[in-house]
Amino acid sequence: MIKVGILNVTGYAGAELARLLYSHPEARLTSVGGRSAVGKPLAEVFPHLACYDLTVTERLDDVDFVFSALPHAASAEAVVPYVRQGMAVVDLSADFRLRDPQEYADWYGASHPAPDLLPDAVYGLSELNRDGVRQAKLVANPGCYPAGALLALAPAVKAGIVAPDIIVDSKSGVSGAGRSLGLSYHFAEANESVSAYGLEGHRHLPEIAQELACLWPPAEGPQPPAPRLTFTPHLVPMTRGILSTCYAPLVPGRLASGEGAKEQVRELYGEFYRGEPFVRVVDSPPATKQTLGNNLCLVYPTVDLRSERLVVVSAIDNLVKGAAGQAVQNMNLMLGFPETAGLDAPAVYP
Amino acid sequence: MIKVGILNVTGYAGAELARLLYSHPEARLTSVGGRSAVGKPLAEVFPHLACYDLTVTERLDDVDFVFSALPHAASAEAVVPYVRQGMAVVDLSADFRLRDPQEYADWYGASHPAPDLLPDAVYGLSELNRDGVRQAKLVANPGCYPAGALLALAPAVKAGIVAPDIIVDSKSGVSGAGRSLGLSYHFAEANESVSAYGLEGHRHLPEIAQELACLWPPAEGPQPPAPRLTFTPHLVPMTRGILSTCYAPLVPGRLASGEGAKEQVRELYGEFYRGEPFVRVVDSPPATKQTLGNNLCLVYPTVDLRSERLVVVSAIDNLVKGAAGQAVQNMNLMLGFPETAGLDAPAVYP
Amino acid sequence: MIKVGILNVTGYAGAELARLLYSHPEARLTSVGGRSAVGKPLAEVFPHLACYDLTVTERLDDVDFVFSALPHAASAEAVVPYVRQGMAVVDLSADFRLRDPQEYADWYGASHPAPDLLPDAVYGLSELNRDGVRQAKLVANPGCYPAGALLALAPAVKAGIVAPDIIVDSKSGVSGAGRSLGLSYHFAEANESVSAYGLEGHRHLPEIAQELACLWPPAEGPQPPAPRLTFTPHLVPMTRGILSTCYAPLVPGRLASGEGAKEQVRELYGEFYRGEPFVRVVDSPPATKQTLGNNLCLVYPTVDLRSERLVVVSAIDNLVKGAAGQAVQNMNLMLGFPETAGLDAPAVYP
Amino acid sequence: MIKVGILNVTGYAGAELARLLYSHPEARLTSVGGRSAVGKPLAEVFPHLACYDLTVTERLDDVDFVFSALPHAASAEAVVPYVRQGMAVVDLSADFRLRDPQEYADWYGASHPAPDLLPDAVYGLSELNRDGVRQAKLVANPGCYPAGALLALAPAVKAGIVAPDIIVDSKSGVSGAGRSLGLSYHFAEANESVSAYGLEGHRHLPEIAQELACLWPPAEGPQPPAPRLTFTPHLVPMTRGILSTCYAPLVPGRLASGEGAKEQVRELYGEFYRGEPFVRVVDSPPATKQTLGNNLCLVYPTVDLRSERLVVVSAIDNLVKGAAGQAVQNMNLMLGFPETAGLDAPAVYP
Repeated sequence: MIKVGILNVTGYAGAELARLLYSHPEARLTSVGGRSAVGKPLAEVFPHLACYDLTVTERLDDVDFVFSALPHAASAEAVVPYVRQGMAVVDLSADFRLRDPQEYADWYGASHPAPDLLPDAVYGLSELNRDGVRQAKLVANPGCYPAGALLALAPAVKAGIVAPDIIVDSKSGVSGAGRSLGLSYHFAEANESVSAYGLEGHRHLPEIAQELACLWPPAEGPQPPAPRLTFTPHLVPMTRGILSTCYAPLVPGRLASGEGAKEQVRELYGEFYRGEPFVRVVDSPPATKQTLGNNLCLVYPTVDLRSERLVVVSAIDNLVKGAAGQAVQNMNLMLGFPETAGLDAPAVYP
Repeated sequence: MIKVGILNVTGYAGAELARLLYSHPEARLTSVGGRSAVGKPLAEVFPHLACYDLTVTERLDDVDFVFSALPHAASAEAVVPYVRQGMAVVDLSADFRLRDPQEYADWYGASHPAPDLLPDAVYGLSELNRDGVRQAKLVANPGCYPAGALLALAPAVKAGIVAPDIIVDSKSGVSGAGRSLGLSYHFAEANESVSAYGLEGHRHLPEIAQELACLWPPAEGPQPPAPRLTFTPHLVPMTRGILSTCYAPLVPGRLASGEGAKEQVRELYGEFYRGEPFVRVVDSPPATKQTLGNNLCLVYPTVDLRSERLVVVSAIDNLVKGAAGQAVQNMNLMLGFPETAGLDAPAVYP
Repeated sequence: MIKVGILNVTGYAGAELARLLYSHPEARLTSVGGRSAVGKPLAEVFPHLACYDLTVTERLDDVDFVFSALPHAASAEAVVPYVRQGMAVVDLSADFRLRDPQEYADWYGASHPAPDLLPDAVYGLSELNRDGVRQAKLVANPGCYPAGALLALAPAVKAGIVAPDIIVDSKSGVSGAGRSLGLSYHFAEANESVSAYGLEGHRHLPEIAQELACLWPPAEGPQPPAPRLTFTPHLVPMTRGILSTCYAPLVPGRLASGEGAKEQVRELYGEFYRGEPFVRVVDSPPATKQTLGNNLCLVYPTVDLRSERLVVVSAIDNLVKGAAGQAVQNMNLMLGFPETAGLDAPAVYP
Repeated sequence: MIKVGILNVTGYAGAELARLLYSHPEARLTSVGGRSAVGKPLAEVFPHLACYDLTVTERLDDVDFVFSALPHAASAEAVVPYVRQGMAVVDLSADFRLRDPQEYADWYGASHPAPDLLPDAVYGLSELNRDGVRQAKLVANPGCYPAGALLALAPAVKAGIVAPDIIVDSKSGVSGAGRSLGLSYHFAEANESVSAYGLEGHRHLPEIAQELACLWPPAEGPQPPAPRLTFTPHLVPMTRGILSTCYAPLVPGRLASGEGAKEQVRELYGEFYRGEPFVRVVDSPPATKQTLGNNLCLVYPTVDLRSERLVVVSAIDNLVKGAAGQAVQNMNLMLGFPETAGLDAPAVYP
């Protein structure tokens, strides 16, 4: 049993880490850090975590592995000491996701707190970067939207069947906004309503763009241009879940014409994700509810023959595959545990 | 006071017509037809309509104006006799929306019941076709998705600033599926879940395509090709509302570069809808909740500068501007009433 | 047209007043006061009220009638000057509901700001006190829970068929908590959850007790003891609506035995509310949804024969009959308008 | 590993059994019976159960233990053969809950299918009847409402501090109605609405009454009269969860007066449930959300000093402690497994 600590257990991602770790056969949560609730029993902050006899502390006790669920900037500051002393860390914040510190400064409004660590940080979307994660000491856990969008698009992008002109239209539950208060998240305002936000540029956009650029087939000529990417997040009246509907024009001539194209795309995706424990290519459009509480990403790829466009829909639980579950999966890879350890309970349905 | 009848008052669109007509200063609902509930008081079928002392009947009594909220095929069959005898009719079904009977046959799986009436039927999206509606005896009320999508796209398409390569990603409340039972609409299944459907081609797609084609500026050359159009409807866990997020590439050189483009688009839309009582061009992305129970369409146009794409978000109440409210607006135009008669109550918020 | 002002239009009750007044044939909203949003257009604070061209101000302009939707204490302070100068006022806060200033001090934690006005204030549940309201200059609008509970219980209490041992178990939508932020009202916390609160004593309890005591038949002997009253409010995941389930033991011998008792109770209630425009005695248990946006109170009385208990269920929209609608109804009575003026639009269903 | 079969896996209780059993260390689900979906892979009926490679069959394969999630009558018919051949069975239907076959006939409208088995059937609310369950071959799993209500009331009833005059006001999520279709469960009808039902007598009433009668302290005199019990279930717009608010008058003189009474009651409950893994006596009113997906019952007892009434609120997940989780707990007891086996994952929150 390794001893695990969570920085900022009092947010939704932190609490979800605690929930998942409770069923982990090889790791035990032994220390929980917080900011607002220092000194309180974890069971008081989150009654559903009364199974733990832990108190929220300002600093972590002696642990073997650290998850940070702190907000950006605060997270880098907190994990750097652990990283420098050689501890394995998964950072759920955005701090180590963007490889270019200038991008970070542009999108997060401050210079990067530890740019020297960026080259060693690994972007932890396990399915696309398993070997990197296995060898990393510092893993940047993907944002919730990028997790679903990248898994939806990766097989097509890597196979070179789509042009670099991509739209990601995502629909998220309200827990994605975190536990802080805001009028938009007041029940009476968010209920019975759908709205778009972040149309001026959401911080997950450069992250999706960066990772898509890595996937583009090199044979396409000189360094491929960054993809034209539009990303529109939406708030929908549910607690958990992200559905991402992704659109990209087909490169002419790469697929059969007519219904055969759909079949080919399905096969391509099936092949790409063969053996993956947490990505399932499904035969009909998924519902986010099918992943509630669970680390799965359900992917439904198809072709809109009328417009010669690839359309891919993916569904995840934003707090699991989009945050804490992906983080545990990364820990499993980093520490040589079975990749599914602690993550195999089915979704809660309905 | 004119006497109005509703065919199939027992569905959601029919009941919504009855609700709106109650506040109409010039029209009185005097006869309600149904199929399942013949002989029952309307107040028993819908307790919120107990303000009416009406009984559901198989055929309409003597009326001056007919709304049909019957499903397609049944609707044409029922309204044809009224049309032939010269009665003014608004048909909320799909039967007279597609001008090409072959298109109808392709999408609805049966030959059109009255193709000879198609040339006289007017597509009743009032803002785009006000004069046509004024002179029509038979108005085909738009589908709920087309209403929101067309109002979002019309100004840009007509101005020639976008290429005919359009994506409409719509998010609808569950009442859009009607009052019939189905596992997908069971509360326990639909709640806390978002899903896409109709990816093989939803019946509102040809309707959107047909009307967009009419809007395309003729100066573009010979008969413009039908737009490449992808339409993806989604089911979200709310009762009412449709949010449509629409995407189209900008035609190069038509707009200023940089932030100025956004300003130009906003002005173009403002100009297009100047004076419209039921379309409001708004300064921040709308929420469907802001239209609950009300005939407004809120439109937020912007430009994604990174990808040089127009992005327009529109919000409507699917049962009002997407069905019954639009139908009353059409009646008002057809009968020379003030266009807003019976439609001016603000949305119910929150 | 009289000119109406609203103090604190920026909360839900204030906004709902503005919504309802828009359709009022005799009153026009001409001045809106606020605290947080002074200087902003009303349309910016509440997009659904863009039909108004009004700006939020610190003080009301010259008006003929004042609604106060301020919180308690602040409300008394603000309305007292209007009252002293003879203006007709409906106060939606709790400040003038409890007749005993000591009760007020006990429950609201401060001495009453204007005890000399208490004798002239009239408790404005119109159905139980219509004449009083008609002659009042200062009406205390009932709390949302008392409105539904009192209408459910009044006929039985007044008829002397129940013992003074009453339980009111109420279920409220989240808008009842107002627009202020709080973790309990965060969508992710309130959604998919039901909870009880206020078990130590909710401030609406003394209000219900006070009004029930007035209803008790005097023939019962000396001054009847205050009823034993338990009131348990619950928070349910919806925006609007209160369902109150009320229980009281039958006084033996007052009703027929067996099924006849149910019939008698139904008749008693029907008789009590005969002709009331806003209370409907219904034949099956009502759903709050049937009153959404509307001033109705639906009442379903029955007898649990096994336990010889009266059970009454009432449904209201907490923001309408439970707040703004009742306030407009009171204004109508005070100013001699038709009681239903501005209040006759059917509920928005579904 | 024992081999377990589920009769009627295609309903919500059946599917929840399958979900919970997946994490069970000692039991493996090897056979799933159905009625509507015979021949289909379980993964097709319930995508969240794709972790199983099972096909729905008409009859169960060779198994060591049987859960029946069939509806009443059908369930007895199906399990009787297993019982007669000595197999251990947990029946989640109502068929073996009422000990008196006449009661069964009165409430379920047909004579009992196997009255000879009733004497051997054990009512399986483990906390109240652990030894009985341990020795049983046929366990009648409690109804969802009785589970929450009985755990809320048992300590007080057994301690003789309340009079036999009880009200149970319960609020349930929609999954309690099962997966069959009905207008009341259509999302558009159930959403944004609360309603009471079953006021004429819900089938869970005799079950609660029967078990309460068993708990009443015998020292109270001759055979205690059946308690006066009123039970009102309500439908609230959420998928899972039951909150039961229970009321009973205190027997005078049994508790201290004033605040001390609350303390005493809390201690009494704490003592009663000391060491129970699945009942937690909590310090503030619980929310159903805190039990989502989990077998806990949270109980909050207090005293309404004004009316000298005990008020107890309990929260459960209707599909777990109210159905499948309780059933697994019973299996654990029957087969000598640790009582918490397969049931220790924390609730999914938020």
